[in-house]
Parts: sequence; structure tokens; C-alpha cells
Amino acid sequence: MDNKILARLSTYLPILDWGAKYNREAASRDALAAVIVTIMLIPQSLAYALLAGLPPEMGIYASIAPIILYAVFGTSRALAVGPVAVVSLMTAVAIGNIADQGTPELITAALTLAFLSGLFLLLLGIFRLGFLANFLSHPVIAGFITASGIIIAASQMKHIFGIDAAGNNLYELLAALFNHLGEANWITSAIGAATIGFLFWVREGLAPVLVNMGMKPRLSEIFAKTGPVVAVVATILVAWRFDLNARGVAVVGEVPQGLPSITVPSFSLDLWTSIVGSAILISIIGFVESISVAQTLATKKRQRIDPDQELIGLGTANIGAAFTGGFPVTGGFSRSVVNFDAGAETPAAGAYTAVGLMIAAVFLTPAIYHLPKATLAATIIVAVLSLVDFSILKKTWVYSKADFAAVTATIIVTLAWGVESGVSSGVAISILIHLYKSSRPHIAEVGRIPGTEHFRNVMRHDVTTYDNIFTLRVDESLYFANARYLEDYIYSAMAMRPKLEHVVLMCSAVNDIDMSALESIEAINERLGTVGIKFHLSEVKGPVMDQLKRTAFLEHLSGAVFLSQHEATLQLANGSSTGERSEEYH
Amino acid sequence: MDNKILARLSTYLPILDWGAKYNREAASRDALAAVIVTIMLIPQSLAYALLAGLPPEMGIYASIAPIILYAVFGTSRALAVGPVAVVSLMTAVAIGNIADQGTPELITAALTLAFLSGLFLLLLGIFRLGFLANFLSHPVIAGFITASGIIIAASQMKHIFGIDAAGNNLYELLAALFNHLGEANWITSAIGAATIGFLFWVREGLAPVLVNMGMKPRLSEIFAKTGPVVAVVATILVAWRFDLNARGVAVVGEVPQGLPSITVPSFSLDLWTSIVGSAILISIIGFVESISVAQTLATKKRQRIDPDQELIGLGTANIGAAFTGGFPVTGGFSRSVVNFDAGAETPAAGAYTAVGLMIAAVFLTPAIYHLPKATLAATIIVAVLSLVDFSILKKTWVYSKADFAAVTATIIVTLAWGVESGVSSGVAISILIHLYKSSRPHIAEVGRIPGTEHFRNVMRHDVTTYDNIFTLRVDESLYFANARYLEDYIYSAMAMRPKLEHVVLMCSAVNDIDMSALESIEAINERLGTVGIKFHLSEVKGPVMDQLKRTAFLEHLSGAVFLSQHEATLQLANGSSTGERSEEYH
Repeated sequence: MDNKILARLSTYLPILDWGAKYNREAASRDALAAVIVTIMLIPQSLAYALLAGLPPEMGIYASIAPIILYAVFGTSRALAVGPVAVVSLMTAVAIGNIADQGTPELITAALTLAFLSGLFLLLLGIFRLGFLANFLSHPVIAGFITASGIIIAASQMKHIFGIDAAGNNLYELLAALFNHLGEANWITSAIGAATIGFLFWVREGLAPVLVNMGMKPRLSEIFAKTGPVVAVVATILVAWRFDLNARGVAVVGEVPQGLPSITVPSFSLDLWTSIVGSAILISIIGFVESISVAQTLATKKRQRIDPDQELIGLGTANIGAAFTGGFPVTGGFSRSVVNFDAGAETPAAGAYTAVGLMIAAVFLTPAIYHLPKATLAATIIVAVLSLVDFSILKKTWVYSKADFAAVTATIIVTLAWGVESGVSSGVAISILIHLYKSSRPHIAEVGRIPGTEHFRNVMRHDVTTYDNIFTLRVDESLYFANARYLEDYIYSAMAMRPKLEHVVLMCSAVNDIDMSALESIEAINERLGTVGIKFHLSEVKGPVMDQLKRTAFLEHLSGAVFLSQHEATLQLANGSSTGERSEEYH
Repeated sequence: MDNKILARLSTYLPILDWGAKYNREAASRDALAAVIVTIMLIPQSLAYALLAGLPPEMGIYASIAPIILYAVFGTSRALAVGPVAVVSLMTAVAIGNIADQGTPELITAALTLAFLSGLFLLLLGIFRLGFLANFLSHPVIAGFITASGIIIAASQMKHIFGIDAAGNNLYELLAALFNHLGEANWITSAIGAATIGFLFWVREGLAPVLVNMGMKPRLSEIFAKTGPVVAVVATILVAWRFDLNARGVAVVGEVPQGLPSITVPSFSLDLWTSIVGSAILISIIGFVESISVAQTLATKKRQRIDPDQELIGLGTANIGAAFTGGFPVTGGFSRSVVNFDAGAETPAAGAYTAVGLMIAAVFLTPAIYHLPKATLAATIIVAVLSLVDFSILKKTWVYSKADFAAVTATIIVTLAWGVESGVSSGVAISILIHLYKSSRPHIAEVGRIPGTEHFRNVMRHDVTTYDNIFTLRVDESLYFANARYLEDYIYSAMAMRPKLEHVVLMCSAVNDIDMSALESIEAINERLGTVGIKFHLSEVKGPVMDQLKRTAFLEHLSGAVFLSQHEATLQLANGSSTGERSEEYH
């Protein structure tokens, strides 16, 4: 009895599942992973706060409460939740329309955005609507991430040059950069360029060097990911030693020392109305990114991810961010991979990371006063450029022109009109293409393969047909978008066959006939009837037949419903059609 | 050669087809129908202009040029194009947001709306995108028309009482009516009530009386439709005799005498931006209404309607309306049925009707000075209440809960938020329900029916299966919305079958595998591979196989592709699986 309740509870609180089995060995592995992830997260969190246009400490805060809440409610063992690049950019766009940089309104907008986004995810999870995230096709996501990466990189170039240059799309960003390039601060530019060069070298070239020096490959991979930490420490020292702040180099400056205080999102209806659309887009993108990371990692250890429970985990994480001075968060790819590679066994690793970040918030904040913003921008640029991958264009071009069209449109719209338009049009295009395809279903005239009871497409096989029978198979469920197409198809075929007596609709691939399609087959039956042609169905599936029986269609049907197409041909081809219905149904 | 060109031209100019065969007999029938339709159209046109919130003469103008242009470009022989109830209401809503009643800006907005709507229809026709209209499911249309009928009737009650009461949804309209009911003009109310009573009686009771008096049923039906004309003439005479205008009864008043002059829609980008959404909705609703009327009538005479050419016909008609003082038009149900019943043979009947209306515009306009607006409102109310039909709720409830949900939502949203929200949400709900259904496709485990080569659902048939093989059939094309569902399904099944060696995906109902689904089956293959289970496909359709061959999937596939499921079972069940692929493909 107790066990049953526990089992049920542990569906909603996965912590009860792994928590019960938690032991010392797992704890020590988790702790080690947490130390590595904490070190890596500090510059990353600061950088993504910068990207979102928010004070740097909010990046740290957004990595504390969310990570703990996800550990309680989430199902992935290795996912690390916090600010990520694309979601931070979308946050910048959403709140940038509401308030100016540096105002308290901007912070409130960010908290509210996290709250609404969390609420939306939570509701989706509670009502088990995770399937909605499937409406983003994989190529559209790939295209969106690539285009966002480019926009993010472009948006950070202003920090590299130390100039003012804002914009929501690629054109605006580049135009602003060129207009203000004359105002560039050359010390800032030098730090930015050097950091970018260093980070690229660390990422690509360091690991092989370390391996050559005798380090284990896995350890060297982890070392290669500490590049941003090294860059941060080095540039802080340089900026402090030469007082670069006084020479025009923008630095992070004063950061409040201590733990995040309790914050409250706004409940103003006006603000809600103006950002709810962005909150929904952020939730969907965040969820899709997070679940793909979680599933990739779970597959490696044969663990199971429950999408609906993931929504609850991410939902509470975002609501947590809203009340502890954070902004929208999700499961990030790079931080999760580091966590996984560093040997994290359970979500407790996340909780230890949170403790590490709290320590950082209390003790390390004075140290980052001299951190140049250019350094943070450089870490963002190097990170997001690894997301840029145009190979999806080639892959889809070879495989499917429809997918190619969707991904191309998504990339172009994202670059030209910004991230929100990009993701919206990506969803719309995916759905439109699907509807277009299913609105013109594959319809084949079929005939019998001699000597068998199989019926195949007359265009592809050598089959027997009869002058007085026209048999067609529709390879799609019949519904509003394709009902009229079927009507047109039958009427055209009818006009070309003078000897026609019977039309048989083979329903082996029809899983559903909706009300619109029912009206269409009623119309077909009636219209064929007026010219003396009988209309029959064959191989109707059980559930569809059950549905048809609840209507008057079968009474009006001029022909019969045959259990198999073979039976239909036997009865109709010899001219002895009696209109009797198959035994099974009557 | 000449004939070929003519044949091709006549696809785009259907007039060349019927015009060449036009003879005296057809002409005299057409002329008779035109006289009847003209008489009926005069009150209807005035009434719909009132409904749209426009000067009465615009209703007449909107019936002249459009009817001629449709006769040239349209494919229906009996369709009568002009203002109709639902489109006039949508026009009132769209232009009501732009300008005040009685201003020149309102007229310009109406012309521009007709122009944009025409342009949109024309573009859809030229690019052969008529299939887009299929995204409105039949039940959604039925629900929308019913709800619009109620809103139209409610919106006209103010004219019946002679008060001011505006609103875009049912609640606003009823609240405004109750608030102003104290200001009602009792003479106006009496005229309105008497006219409504008279029109209902004429519609329901007159025809049987006439038949009893020895009149032919068909002629009596036509007579029963002249009720509005009788009401108009009678109330004009009463209002003129007793000078009711001076006693507070609102009358039509001064109407410009003469033919419509050339008008020009606005090309202001601001105006276009604010009404383009409404123009698109009006176009879609207008097209759907028109094509269903056209197809109903064409079926009766075994004529063919070309949807894409219809778009061109309606597009030019609307553009024509924009340049001749009209407003958005479409093929109307009641006017077309009268035209058809009166014996119209060709679109020339429409042209003759246009001539009749031109004569009316020149000579009859002074006569309608004293026409009470309450009379026009009464004709609208009686006409639209015949559109109200809640039986669709019962029908869909019995047949399909999904369709029921869509129609209920459409009715509620239309009544509560107005026509534009109603039709938009109807489309959205239809599409969402379809996506939801196809995102959880029917997946069946199948086994062999003993003694045959048929494989059927293990839940419905007594079939042979093997411990080491799990065969599943997906009854839907694989695409982004259901790819993940298939993955989850297979992983769950895998966990429950310890002896599993082979998973066979039977693809007989899979007509397409998009890029997202390809990635999913690649993931399935990889994941099954890690636990030593082979993944096979069977009965893959030709086009899908062609597509798969362009990828690396078949090289990575751990199992084989079998031509038939029978072959797969033969090879795999005896434990001698060799991983060889079927001859057909390699």
C-alpha cells in the first residue's frame, strides 16, 4: 500500500525514485562533477545575463533555484538547467520592447517573463500536452538554432568593439555596427579579439596537445572546456593591473554581493498581455532544446525521459527563477554535456552546483568588478558559433524539398525579421507543408495481382482490372483538407470511363473519416447514383466502420461494404452485383 | 491550331466555351430569369448595404459590375454574385474599426477592402492555391454560418426599434439593445414587426396556398420569394402617405440617381495594413460559401466547377466592385437558387440582371426615398434566421467528438468575440485537432493469420506471433508531429519484451517519411542496436524507398528491408536471420 503511493508519487517527484537509492559513491561522483560545472558556469551565467541585457548577477541567480527545483521535479539525471544562449537572446528581444536597458522595469519584465513561461510549461505538463512541442520539425529547429547563433554573434560584436549598436535582426545589427565602427575602443577590441582567438584555440587545439603530453583524453576534454574561466581570470587581472576601466574599456563593475533575495514578478495585466506571446515562444523553444539534450544523454545510459514530467520540471524551474531574481532558463546543451562527462550520476549534482554558485555569489562577486564585457562577449561568440551548422540545408535538399523549404524559410525569416518571427514562421511553414501534403493524398487505382488476393497500384504492377469496376485506394485518412480532392478525383475518373458500373473505395489506409469527409462520400454516393453507378467500400477498418454505423450513410449507400477487396471483385466483376452487404457488418 | 488556342483560352475565359454555343432559346430563358432575379435583388442589395453600414446605392452598384465580370471569368452557369449576408457583416466589422458611419473614409475603406479581397482571390487563383479553402472543415463552416446569422439578426434589431445600438458580439449587441429600448420609436417597431411577420408567413405559408389555388409548385415557389419586394413597395407607400419620416421613422432618404461612377480604392499602406487581415478572412469565407453554392447547383446539371478558376472569377468580381462603388461580394445562396430555379441557362442571365439593376439605379432610386430602414432590417432578419441551424451540433456529437468540439468552439467564439475571431479560431481548431489526431497515430502489433500471408492486429484477430520478433504497423505517414510518439512506443515495447531480437516496422500505410521522422527511425535503429536488437522494415512503398536510398540510413540499418511482412517472418522466426536485404532493393 505504502509502496503503491510511493510509486505513484515518484512519477511526479522523480527525486523519490533516485533519492531512495542514493549512496556515498554516487554522492562523491556528483560532488566532483559539481565542482567542474560550477567553475564553468560562472563565466557562462554572467555572459548570458549580458546577452539578455540584464545585470550580470541575474545570470548567477538564474542558475541557483532553477537547478534545485529541476533536481526535484525533472526526470533527466544529467540535465543542467540555467540560462542558455537562444533563450537569453529571446529574452533580450521580448523585454527590450517593454523597457530601457538598466531600468528596474526591465528586471521586472524579465522576472515576469520567467514566471509566465514557467506557468505555461507547468500547465502543459499538468494537462499532458507535451505533444505540442512536436509541431516544430527537426529541420526547422536546426535552421532556427543556426540563424539564432548568427544573430547572437552579431549582437555581441558591439561589446568586442566597445560601441553602441542595437538591432533585432541581422541587417539592423550589421548596419549599426558599421555606423559606429569609428567609435571603437581599440583596447577593448584587442581584448575581445585576443579572447576569441584564445578560446577558439583552446577548443580546437588544446585537447590534442594535452593528450600528447600524456593526459587522459577524457580529462583533456574537460580541461579544454575551462578556456572561458582562464580567459576571465586573465582579463580581470590585466584590466585591474592597467586600470583599463579608466581608459574606456567597459567592465562589469559593481555587482551586489550575497545570495539572491526574494523577487516578485509583476501581475499587471498590461505587461502580461504584451509579453505572453514571447513567453509561449520561449517556453516552446526552451522545452524542445532541453528535451533533445535530455534524451540524447538518457539514451547513452538507457534511462527514460518523461516529456510531460519534463514540462513540470522546467515549469517549476522557471517559476523558481522568477522569485529569486533570475530570468527564463532551460536545460542547456553545453553545461549538461560537461555535467555528464564529469561523471554526474544523479540530479543531486545539480544541487551541489547550486551550492557552489551560492558560494560564488557571496565571495567572488567583488572579484569580477574588473571583468571586461568584451571577454564575456567573446565567450558567447565562440559558444554560439559552434551552433551554426548549415549542413541541414544540404541534408534536406537531398532528402526532401518540403523540409528544405521549411528550413530555408526559417533561416531567412530569423535573420531578416528576428527570432520570434523566425520560430513562429517555422512552425507555421511546417504545419502548412504537412497540410498541403495530406490535402493531396496519394490515390492509386488498384487491380489484382494474378493468382493472388493482393491488390496493387495499376501504375506499378501488372494487374488484372475490369471495365465495369473502378477501384481506388486512398493512402491517407479522409478529413476536411482532402475530402474535396477525393471528390474531384472520382468525378474526373468517372467522366473518362463510359462502361463504369461500380466504384469501389478501398479503405485499407483510412484510419479516420471526419465529418467533412463523411459529407463528401455521401455526396459521391449521391452523385454516382444519379448516373446509375454504384458506390462500394472495401476493407474498412473496425473503428471507422463503428463510426459510419452511427450515421445514415450505410442506409443510403447504393452499393455494399466488402470485408476484402478480393471479395468485392469476385462479386462485382461477373456482373452479378446484388448490392448485398458483406456478412461481417450486417 | 486555332482550336487548340481557343480551348486553352477557354479554360481561363469560360465565356468562350458557352458563348460560342449561345442561341435564341437559351437567351430567352436567361432573360426571363434575369427579370425575376432583378426584382428580388433590389431590396436584398439595399438591405445588405445597410448591414455593411454603407449607403444603400452601394448595394445596387455592388451587384452590377461584379455580376458581369463573373459571367466572363467564372465557371458556374447559375451563380449570382453580389453582396451576401455574412460577407456584408464582416465588411461592417472590418471598416467599422477604420472610420465612422457616414464618412467618406468609410466608403474608401469598403472599396479598398473589396480591392484587397479581390486581389487575394485572384492571386490564389493564379497560383492555383484553391486548396487553402479546404482548411475550413464543413462543421466549422456550418457553426460559423449559424452563429453569424444570430449576430446579424441581433445587429439589425436596432433598425426594427429605431434606436442606436452597436456592438461586435452578441453580448454587446444585446446589452446595447436593452439599454436603449426605452428610446424605441413605436411606429418604426410596428412596421418592423409587421414586416417580419409578413415575410415569415410568405416564406412558410404562401406557396401551399398558391398551389391550392391551382398554381404550379415551381412558379409558386418563385412567387413566395417575392415577399421582400411586396413588403418594400407596401411600406414605401405607407411611409409616403403618412409622412412617417417626420414622425421619427428612419427612411433610406436621398439616393443618388444614375449609374455608378468610377471609384478608386485607397493605396495607402496604413489602410492596407489595418484591413488586409479582414480582407483575407472575407475572401476565404466568401470563396467557401460561393463554391459550395456553385457545386450544389452544378451537380444538379452535371456541370463541372473548377475551384481555381472560380477564385479568378470572384477575384475579378471584387476588383470590379472596388472600381464601381461597391463593396466585397461573393456568390450568394439565395440569389443563385432563384436564378437557377427561374431557369437561367448561362452566365448571360447574370449580365441581363446587371442591365436590369442599371435601369433600377437610373429610374427607381427616387422611389425608395420613403423606404423605412426597418423594412430592410426585417428582410435581413428573416433571411439570416433561415441560416441558423443547430442540428450540426447533434450530428457531430453522434459522429465525431473532435468535430463537435470544433463546431462548438466556433459558435461560442463567434457569438462571444465576433465573426473574425470566430472564423480564425475555427480554422485553428480544425487544424489543431487534425494535428493532434495524426500526432498519435494508430499503431498496432500485428501477427500472421494462420494459413495465409495476411498480417493483422493482434488485438482484433487470432494470429501467430513469435517471441523474438515484434512487428508493428503504423497507420499514418511518419512526420514531425508523430515521430517522437513512434520512438516512445517502440522503447516502451522493448522494455516489456526480454526475449526480443528483431523489431520489424511494417510500412504499408506509410506514404511519406519526412526529415524529422527519418532522424527518429535513425535514432530507433541506433538505440535498438546498443542492446543488440535488429531493426527491420517491411512493405516499404516505392517512393518512400527511393527517398531512403538517398540517405545513409539503409547503410546504418542493423536489419533488412523486406518486400513483404510474410518474407520477414519466414526469415526471422526460425532464428536464421542473416541480415540480408530483400532482392528487390539491393
